[in-house]
Amino acid sequence: MNGTYDFGLVGLGVMGRNFILNVADNGFTAFGNDLDPEKVSALIKEGGDINRVDATVDVSAFAKALSSPRKIMLLVPAGKIVDAVIEGLLPHLDKGDIIIDGGNSFFTDTDRRASYLEEKGIHFFGAGVSGGAKGARKGPSIMPGGSKEGYKAVQPIFEAVSAKYKGEPCVAYLGPKSAGNYVKMVHNGIEYGLMQLTSEIYDVLKKAGNLSNDELHNTYKMWNEGRLQSFLVEITSEIFAQKDDLKDGSLVDAILDKAKQKGTGKWTSQNAMDLGIPVPSIDIAVSMREISALKEERIKADALYDRPTVETIDKDKLVKLSEEALYFSFIITYAQGLHQLADASKEYGYDLDLAVIAKVWRAGCIIRAGLLADIAETFDADATLPNLLLSPRFVQQVQSTVASARELVAFGAKNGIPLPGLSNSLTYFDAYTSSRLPLNLIQAQRDYFGSHTYERLDRDGVFHTEWEKESRN
Amino acid sequence: MNGTYDFGLVGLGVMGRNFILNVADNGFTAFGNDLDPEKVSALIKEGGDINRVDATVDVSAFAKALSSPRKIMLLVPAGKIVDAVIEGLLPHLDKGDIIIDGGNSFFTDTDRRASYLEEKGIHFFGAGVSGGAKGARKGPSIMPGGSKEGYKAVQPIFEAVSAKYKGEPCVAYLGPKSAGNYVKMVHNGIEYGLMQLTSEIYDVLKKAGNLSNDELHNTYKMWNEGRLQSFLVEITSEIFAQKDDLKDGSLVDAILDKAKQKGTGKWTSQNAMDLGIPVPSIDIAVSMREISALKEERIKADALYDRPTVETIDKDKLVKLSEEALYFSFIITYAQGLHQLADASKEYGYDLDLAVIAKVWRAGCIIRAGLLADIAETFDADATLPNLLLSPRFVQQVQSTVASARELVAFGAKNGIPLPGLSNSLTYFDAYTSSRLPLNLIQAQRDYFGSHTYERLDRDGVFHTEWEKESRN
Repeated sequence: MNGTYDFGLVGLGVMGRNFILNVADNGFTAFGNDLDPEKVSALIKEGGDINRVDATVDVSAFAKALSSPRKIMLLVPAGKIVDAVIEGLLPHLDKGDIIIDGGNSFFTDTDRRASYLEEKGIHFFGAGVSGGAKGARKGPSIMPGGSKEGYKAVQPIFEAVSAKYKGEPCVAYLGPKSAGNYVKMVHNGIEYGLMQLTSEIYDVLKKAGNLSNDELHNTYKMWNEGRLQSFLVEITSEIFAQKDDLKDGSLVDAILDKAKQKGTGKWTSQNAMDLGIPVPSIDIAVSMREISALKEERIKADALYDRPTVETIDKDKLVKLSEEALYFSFIITYAQGLHQLADASKEYGYDLDLAVIAKVWRAGCIIRAGLLADIAETFDADATLPNLLLSPRFVQQVQSTVASARELVAFGAKNGIPLPGLSNSLTYFDAYTSSRLPLNLIQAQRDYFGSHTYERLDRDGVFHTEWEKESRN
Repeated sequence: MNGTYDFGLVGLGVMGRNFILNVADNGFTAFGNDLDPEKVSALIKEGGDINRVDATVDVSAFAKALSSPRKIMLLVPAGKIVDAVIEGLLPHLDKGDIIIDGGNSFFTDTDRRASYLEEKGIHFFGAGVSGGAKGARKGPSIMPGGSKEGYKAVQPIFEAVSAKYKGEPCVAYLGPKSAGNYVKMVHNGIEYGLMQLTSEIYDVLKKAGNLSNDELHNTYKMWNEGRLQSFLVEITSEIFAQKDDLKDGSLVDAILDKAKQKGTGKWTSQNAMDLGIPVPSIDIAVSMREISALKEERIKADALYDRPTVETIDKDKLVKLSEEALYFSFIITYAQGLHQLADASKEYGYDLDLAVIAKVWRAGCIIRAGLLADIAETFDADATLPNLLLSPRFVQQVQSTVASARELVAFGAKNGIPLPGLSNSLTYFDAYTSSRLPLNLIQAQRDYFGSHTYERLDRDGVFHTEWEKESRN
């Protein structure tokens, strides 16, 4: 019936289809729209109760179906498609209607679109959605920011459909402008870091401990029952249990080792560099996906170089080392991402509350982990903490696990097993906790060749030296 | 005398002043321009022979002084100043005049300016200049690209003023569009990597070997006489010999360990990510400068965490390990930067000749090194080599030094000495030379939570699995 549907959704791919059904599951009526008639009919078929969910390829019919003010969420690929969809909708909208970009749009695009649509009287805001297909269906973590008025209109729907952590909805208004997309971007950067870490630990368990896939399954399962409890550790355990449909053996062994990426991890690293915030555990995860893509070159290079014979480590010892190293490097990776958010909050005026963000991440999203409850409490206690590593709460957790990280990094280096996420987490920790670093030499070099000046430890001011040898020449 | 000066230079800072005097030293007449009258009078005073060099604050007088077509080089800070200077010049120029941007402009800015000026009949091209103040005066490495016609007009001047390697000028036309600025950007990215490596090796020599500054001076001096021969190793040696003017001791010990940056290293990393080319030895150098800037946080963090007691390594053994590890990681860092150039050449249509670039870098520039002669020969022999590590010539050099890199990385990890440049070079090497990486797990995770699909090792096609546990839930 026209003008009665509570919620509209454009883009009926995997995420969109699941999200709209989730809305309907929670008692709201929802109308979908997609250019592709097959996706529309698939949804209608799957939706079942046509009174709650319907869909059309016709934008005009879609707009007419929605109650006022219209609440329209876009779940389409980031980039020009978002602009095209907005242009297609505009002639059918009224002032006061609300458009929500639920995709992984780059945050400056969101700011641009919000300004553009504000002039037309449309509320526009970005809301990161994490949880994959199942999360979208059963309860994702949702990260909205931007128009507060717009958000209030959809808040009841978002709170109903979102994941719950001990009853609390994993959604909250995070801040003005593109805060929602920005937080989701950094979420994904952290996700890249954690995925890299789980994958390299798998490598060392297999190469140094000869763990079978069954043993890997059990190891990650056991870890998921402890302090490493997290969605990524859980699904890693499940992955090792998956049999191959096409031949004997485990599916994981048949999968090509070229990891793809859609750009959010890269954006996180690139933007961290613009802010001047170090996130080497995320940077290296991006690099490793790139190296993985160079499969043909790797095969050629492998044939040219000898590799050390891998020493064996006792399984129990290796599993313990790995658990501690993984816990250590998870903390360091979260610390970097949160540090970036704290700085972006100032730089872009997002006024972020890191405790709220950690709470929104506790369930539903890909980086959900038991650790996030600790992180939320830490920032609840001290909202201005510049870095997780400065929290007394984490000193003990880091201090008690860093020795294993040291041992594994040393082992990987000697045995030719690349553990770059772990080694970057360790060097980040060692550098961040060093009151003195050798970069005085770099300042000396810069002054030597470029007269770039330097500061001194013992007095204020800016100095330049006519370096003796340089002057002699 | 009006209309007679061979060469014009805007921006009489350290680099500009030195460059223009270099032009005059080589028998050309040169006219300078700067908004700052003090810089103008400083140049005239320093210039001596007023028939060869003169300068003015007046743009119109500056333009009138130059012979036709005018050849005007800008050595001003990158960014809006370049645009402002161009706008200020334009009313005084004629069609066919040539503007050369000698600064570190971002390459897309150069492309934009070239299009803009082409419409006005002005030849514009970017030419990276490296060598610092002394290089500008005595012979820099110059990296021009863009308008070939424009370049030909200044070629005799550039070839005269540039550094010479065994008589060959360290300047060559590198390619169309912003090729010159792009190559200079990556040059600086490599520079960041090499500087980080020299600084962390200094750290380990000092902490594990207790080398005094005199011993450090002698060590780097000795290295500079061997295969590590390079400008950065040479000046590092000199830096350790420099006494402090303000108190007893070596100057290096008084310099604050906060390293500044002007952005070219960051741009190299960010653009490498856009290209999908891994340059982790450069990325981590950028991160380390950022971490160094967090001095207050580092002091707080240092007080919270215990640090391992550093074991001592026999001096001779440590110096040998360090030399090999540094040589190894220098090669790996050059390999990454050159890999980026090879890819950028395709992506941006620069048609770069890596052998020519390596030759231009053999003298004059900050990253000049004995190694570059080998690199030039390697690419002369095989212009399409995707990565230096695939060259038979380098297999032996890498193979014979990697064990020391392994040992030092392991040592740093165990002893709490951050060696991130070295460890990223090692993990890059170990990953690049691995025909199998554990990133099959990452593809499995992506398919599990996001239905992102995967490829298989044993057959073509794109696959998606309904993961069992996922389906059961």
